[in-house]
Amino acid sequence: MKYSKKIQSLISKGKIGDEILIESSKGTFFGTLMPRPEIGDKDSLIIKLKNGYNIGIKSKNIRSVKVIKKMEEKKAIREIHFDKSKPNISLFVTGGTIASKIDYDTGAVKALMNPQEILDTIPELSNIVNIADISRPFTKMSEDMEPNDWISLAKGIYKKIENGSKGIIVTHGTDTLHYTSAALSFFLQKPSVPIVLVGAQRSSDRPSTDAHMNLICSAYTSLSDISEVGICMHATMNDDYCYFIRGTKVRKMHTSRRDAFRPINDLPLAKIWPNGKIEKLQDYHKRGGKTILDTKFDNKVALLKTYPGSNPGIMKYLIDKGYHGFVLEGTGLGHVPTNSKNSWIPIIKKSIKDGIPVVVTSQTIYGRVNPNVYTNLRVLYHESKAIPGEDMLSETAYIKLGWVLGHTKDMDKIREMMLTNVSGEINSRSNPKTFLW
Amino acid sequence: MKYSKKIQSLISKGKIGDEILIESSKGTFFGTLMPRPEIGDKDSLIIKLKNGYNIGIKSKNIRSVKVIKKMEEKKAIREIHFDKSKPNISLFVTGGTIASKIDYDTGAVKALMNPQEILDTIPELSNIVNIADISRPFTKMSEDMEPNDWISLAKGIYKKIENGSKGIIVTHGTDTLHYTSAALSFFLQKPSVPIVLVGAQRSSDRPSTDAHMNLICSAYTSLSDISEVGICMHATMNDDYCYFIRGTKVRKMHTSRRDAFRPINDLPLAKIWPNGKIEKLQDYHKRGGKTILDTKFDNKVALLKTYPGSNPGIMKYLIDKGYHGFVLEGTGLGHVPTNSKNSWIPIIKKSIKDGIPVVVTSQTIYGRVNPNVYTNLRVLYHESKAIPGEDMLSETAYIKLGWVLGHTKDMDKIREMMLTNVSGEINSRSNPKTFLW
Repeated sequence: MKYSKKIQSLISKGKIGDEILIESSKGTFFGTLMPRPEIGDKDSLIIKLKNGYNIGIKSKNIRSVKVIKKMEEKKAIREIHFDKSKPNISLFVTGGTIASKIDYDTGAVKALMNPQEILDTIPELSNIVNIADISRPFTKMSEDMEPNDWISLAKGIYKKIENGSKGIIVTHGTDTLHYTSAALSFFLQKPSVPIVLVGAQRSSDRPSTDAHMNLICSAYTSLSDISEVGICMHATMNDDYCYFIRGTKVRKMHTSRRDAFRPINDLPLAKIWPNGKIEKLQDYHKRGGKTILDTKFDNKVALLKTYPGSNPGIMKYLIDKGYHGFVLEGTGLGHVPTNSKNSWIPIIKKSIKDGIPVVVTSQTIYGRVNPNVYTNLRVLYHESKAIPGEDMLSETAYIKLGWVLGHTKDMDKIREMMLTNVSGEINSRSNPKTFLW
Repeated sequence: MKYSKKIQSLISKGKIGDEILIESSKGTFFGTLMPRPEIGDKDSLIIKLKNGYNIGIKSKNIRSVKVIKKMEEKKAIREIHFDKSKPNISLFVTGGTIASKIDYDTGAVKALMNPQEILDTIPELSNIVNIADISRPFTKMSEDMEPNDWISLAKGIYKKIENGSKGIIVTHGTDTLHYTSAALSFFLQKPSVPIVLVGAQRSSDRPSTDAHMNLICSAYTSLSDISEVGICMHATMNDDYCYFIRGTKVRKMHTSRRDAFRPINDLPLAKIWPNGKIEKLQDYHKRGGKTILDTKFDNKVALLKTYPGSNPGIMKYLIDKGYHGFVLEGTGLGHVPTNSKNSWIPIIKKSIKDGIPVVVTSQTIYGRVNPNVYTNLRVLYHESKAIPGEDMLSETAYIKLGWVLGHTKDMDKIREMMLTNVSGEINSRSNPKTFLW
C-alpha cells in the first residue's frame, strides 16, 4: 500500500521508521513515520506519537515534513554478561508484546524478538540476577495459547526448579496471562521458589513501554521469599511500582492500560519497587520445601456465559461432543435463567445426573456465589446440585475444573475438590477493601 | 425440615421469624430465628443477623435462647395517599429483591410483594412525587427476564410518557438490570422524561436494605432534567448518596454489595442525594422533545466468550439453528484464538461471508477494542471483517446487535450502525478517570 503522490512528495527525504516533524494547520506533530494502513485514506500521513498512539494528518493540512532522525540500522545484538555471583534464575520466553517489536512494513506489532534482544534493552537486569538459562517452549501471542501449552510450560519450569534455579521468570502475552497464571498455580503447587509471570502492554521499542520496569520488578520478585505463582506488572499509570498478584486471583481488567492487571477478591501479595524494595500486603507461601508438579488435566471443559436470551442448547451440543464439565458464568449471586422459556435448569439437572459437573461463578467478577438466599438459587444448587464457585474467578474455576477432572470423575469428590482451596483460589472471608482495587 | 430435638427444646418459646438473643460459648448473638436450611446440620440454630447475613450456632455451644420480640403479624396494607399537587410519575414494578420479602417458611427471599407494600414502607415518597399509576407488566426475578420482556416494558413506558407522565421509575431485579437498561436505551431513544431503573441488593424487610434510599433518590431523579435511561442505586457502602448511571454504560460488578452498579468507560451522570440534591458529573440529554419508541429487535443473536481451549463449534451450532448475529467477548484489545488448533477465524470468516455479522468486545470489561495494533487483530478485523465493538460493554453490544438486526440485514449498514453512537453506548474518547470507578 502506498501513500498518495502528494504525501509521497511531502516525505520525499523520509523513510518509514524515521522520526519526523510535521507542521500542519492542525498543529505541530512529532513522531515516527508509519506505513499507510491497509484500510484507510491514502492521502493521510500516519505517524506514531511518542505516547504510542497513531494519528493521521490529511495532506492538504500539511505545510512541511522534516526528518529529525533517521531510523537506526539494526544493531548487532550485544549479549548481556550476567554476574555469575548473583543468584541463578531461569527465564522462559513465550511470546507476546513483551517480546515484540513494531513491524515497520505493516505498522503492526509482531512477536518476533529474540530473547537476547529483550535482555539487551535492560542491562540493569545483570545487577540483580544471573539469568542462567533461557527457555523458549513456544512463541505465541497469548490469545493463541492452549491448555497443552500450560502443561509444557509447567513441566519446563519444574525441571529448572529441580535443577536448582532460585527463581523463575516467564514472559508472556497479556491477553490470557491470567489463564496461564491460574493453570500454573494448580500444576505447580507450593512452589519452592517464586514463579513470576510478566507481560507488557506496550512493546519495548516504544517510549511508553512498561516492559523494562515490569521485568526489573519481576527479577526482584523472583529472588524474594514470596514463593507463589503470580503476575508482576505495573500497579499504577506511573512508573512507580508493580504489584505481584496471586495467580488464581488476578485478571486483565483493561484493554490497554499499563496497570490493567488487578487482584479480584484479594489483595496483591506485595508492592514491588524497581529499586528492589518490597512491601508485603498479605500472607503468602514462603520459599523452600518441595514443589508439587501435578499437570493431570482434562481439557473437555467449557466456560459458558448465561444471560437473558442465552441458549442452553449449547450445553447439550457440547455434551454430545463428549465434554466432561461446565463452568457457567451466571448473573448476580450465581443465577442462571431458571423460570424462563430458555431455562438452563433441565440441561443442568440432566448433565449432573449423567455425571457431568456444573460449576457456577458470577459475571459480576467481584463477590461470592451464594447458594442459599433466593428460591431460584436453591433450585440450582440444592435441587439440581450445581456446585457454587465461591469467590473464584470464572477463568480460574474453568481451569480448576479441568484440573479436578484430570484427577477424578466421582461427583462427590469433584464437589469436594472444587470447594476446597488448593492454591489461593478461594478466600473463605471476603475483604471489603478489595472491591475495584 | 426440622431442627434437632436439642435445638427445638432450646427455642421452645420462639417461632421462626422472632427476634432472639442467643448466649453461647462463641459469644452473644442477636437476630431473627430462621428455619433449618434444607441442606446443613440440623443441630445448628440459624439466625439472620442485623447485617443481613445468616450464621449457624451448634446446640452444644448454646447456653440460652431468649425471645426478644415476636414476629409481627401481617399488617393490613395502608395505601399511601400521594399529594396530587406533586408531579405525576409512573411506577413500573417488575419483581426482584426490591419487591421481595424473606419467606419465613424456607428462609429464602421470594418475589411476592404487592406494589402497595413497597410504597407502604417508604411514606417519604409522597413528599417528593405523586405516583399517579402503578403498572406491573410481569413479575420476575431478573435472571428470568427475556428480550420480549424488554419490549413490553418499553411499550408500557412509552404509553405513560405519551399520556403525560413527568418521569418513570422501574423497580427491577439486579441480576440483569443492566441488560434491561441497555435494551430500554435503544428502544426508547432521546426520552422526553427521565426513565429511572432501580433495584435493591437487600430486600426491604432487612435492616440493611438499600431499597428505601434507592427509591427516594430515584424519585428525585425522575423529576430532574437528566432525561436519560439509567440506573439509580447506592454509590458507596454508606447510605450517603446514589449514582444515576447511563443505561448503556453500567454493569453489576459485585454479587452482593449495595454499591455493586458501576459505570464502565464512563462517568456517572450524576450523584443523587436522598435529600434531593443533585450533582451533575457529565453532559446528558435534557428533558423535553419527543421520545422515539423503536423496539424492532431480532433475538437470534448470541453472546459468546472466547478463551484458551474455547470451542468455535458453538458458533457453527448456533448458525445451524438459524442465528443471525454474534457478539464474541474476546481477550485484550479484542482478540480471539487465531493461530491455534481451535482458531475461531475460519467460522468467523464463513459467518460474515454468509451475511451473519460478528462483533467483538473485550472480556477485560474496561477499555476499547483496537482493530489495528497487532497482526492477529488485522486478521480478525481487516481480513475477516469482524466489527470491533469500540468501548461498548459486551452486554450492551449484544443487545445493540439484536436491535440493529431488527432494522437491517445489510452488512455495510449493520457495520455502520454498530459503529455509530445511538444512546451513549460508544464514547469516542477514553477518560482515564473512569477505570475502576
